[in-house]
Amino acid sequence: MKVMIIGGGGFLGQKLARALAARGMLNGSAIGELVLADIAAPDPVEAPFAVTAAGIDITDHAATATLMQMRPDVIYHLAAIVSGQAEAEFDTGMAVNLTGSLNVFEAARALGTCPRLVFTSSIAVYGGEIPHPIEDWTGLNPQTSYGTQKAAAELLLNDYSRRSFLDGRGLRLPTISIRPGKPNKAASSFMSSSFREPLQGQEAVCPVGPDYPHWYLSPRRCIENLIHAAEVPAADWGQNRCLALPGRTHTIGEMVEAMRRVAGDTPVNLIRWEADPEVQRIVLGWCSRINPEKALRLGFVRDESFEDNIRYFLEDDIER
Amino acid sequence: MKVMIIGGGGFLGQKLARALAARGMLNGSAIGELVLADIAAPDPVEAPFAVTAAGIDITDHAATATLMQMRPDVIYHLAAIVSGQAEAEFDTGMAVNLTGSLNVFEAARALGTCPRLVFTSSIAVYGGEIPHPIEDWTGLNPQTSYGTQKAAAELLLNDYSRRSFLDGRGLRLPTISIRPGKPNKAASSFMSSSFREPLQGQEAVCPVGPDYPHWYLSPRRCIENLIHAAEVPAADWGQNRCLALPGRTHTIGEMVEAMRRVAGDTPVNLIRWEADPEVQRIVLGWCSRINPEKALRLGFVRDESFEDNIRYFLEDDIER
Repeated sequence: MKVMIIGGGGFLGQKLARALAARGMLNGSAIGELVLADIAAPDPVEAPFAVTAAGIDITDHAATATLMQMRPDVIYHLAAIVSGQAEAEFDTGMAVNLTGSLNVFEAARALGTCPRLVFTSSIAVYGGEIPHPIEDWTGLNPQTSYGTQKAAAELLLNDYSRRSFLDGRGLRLPTISIRPGKPNKAASSFMSSSFREPLQGQEAVCPVGPDYPHWYLSPRRCIENLIHAAEVPAADWGQNRCLALPGRTHTIGEMVEAMRRVAGDTPVNLIRWEADPEVQRIVLGWCSRINPEKALRLGFVRDESFEDNIRYFLEDDIER
Repeated sequence: MKVMIIGGGGFLGQKLARALAARGMLNGSAIGELVLADIAAPDPVEAPFAVTAAGIDITDHAATATLMQMRPDVIYHLAAIVSGQAEAEFDTGMAVNLTGSLNVFEAARALGTCPRLVFTSSIAVYGGEIPHPIEDWTGLNPQTSYGTQKAAAELLLNDYSRRSFLDGRGLRLPTISIRPGKPNKAASSFMSSSFREPLQGQEAVCPVGPDYPHWYLSPRRCIENLIHAAEVPAADWGQNRCLALPGRTHTIGEMVEAMRRVAGDTPVNLIRWEADPEVQRIVLGWCSRINPEKALRLGFVRDESFEDNIRYFLEDDIER
């Protein structure tokens, strides 16, 4: 069993690699090799199997085809230009998120083995004039270029699966909170930094008000879901291979109070509330009421409380 | 006012060109020039303004950009590989329906004038596990490669419009019945040939049973809607620029009885009922119960009865 993670240098890719190393197995088979591919060859991880790092620019059709000659059985395609950057740099977002994804799908198709392919989409595919809560059959109506590119890639993933070019599974990720590391160009970056920086003793700026509700998932549960996605039998998915992962909705204010209950007043006092109209324009177009019926039926999981998310961060990711 | 029809050699493109010639005006301005572009330079039409014919392969990015240097104010993008062919020849469908559409959108964007662009999508974007009737917010869940490519192009049209790269209007066409001319590779070809051939004294084969329901629109009303689409103010569309055109649902059996009422028993007796599993597999995945609320609100129109469609064919299109 060979596994490839495209976007293997990102924080989810690295966490997934470590989780696969800890399990040693995927979908009932022992992992023999893990390929971590990203725009720069990623850091390897310690594992009981071979780990290969590769540099890949998925906007390069030929290079992507060459990479795929490592013939993975399971491919994770996590690589993307995030929402804020795809909005600011339209052509870059199109090249990576749409053309790049299509290059990955085409290279997987060319193997002729119908490899299993787990693709990370986003709740940014939803928005606009649609009724709430969002159901599995609600239209994708993205309000950003990032959401548009993810939604178009989802459609292609479904058709490539229907034609048995690959065995696709697309997961619409809630905002992942609390992400480790540094703030990034995602418009939702504050959903992690408002907690991460204060828990690490630094000041954070929150660009939305405490009443802003958000649909979130912890990194720990997200990784469990990424692994589960590769293990659900193809027949159980049905024709539509893309779904919203389970999450939970809280307002930022409620999340801050959860942090206070777990970690006291000190981190809470490090949050500076400072409205940012451009961030608000993007994130207020996202949807926070989602009914992930199909995902729950297929066994995907969510967090019990935001207190858990604070604890997971303190256990797994805090930098002191 | 300069108008360009890409796909101007097809039957809708030619009918649209003749309708524009008869009106002389579009969106309140006199038409000064009409450009008819297609894979082979189309037949010109008689008109009170200049008509230019151009050969264009929209899968060629540079050639499409060059064509667009004619700087149209309104672009009709009707060019497509039809459903049956896109299913049989996957790469051809992707090249024309997705990459080709993107080439047209990019060339229009490069003008820097935010030209108005009317795009023909299809009810083939619907299907699968979705509740009926289909509403404006129902998810696009195509069951064919053709529908997938149209749905992905719709998403891009919305985003290009949101960014003011162009002023897009996407129309999901019902099956157009009764089309003139010859049978084509569309899986829905029988929706015209079952009436057209008998009305022209020839035998026709109907690959579905009389109980098969279909969502249809006459060519005459379709052309009225294509013109209307270029005239609805941008502000009235809202963010989502794509909608299902109004149609009407009848079973093939009811349509045949409508033909009998208008044209007697002779054409009805020329229909041979002969099931075709591959055609049925495709068209049974399409949806026939659609609530085109937004389209009706914006002033798009449908037929009153299938008897009208028979009469329109006899008036406009019959070849004797």
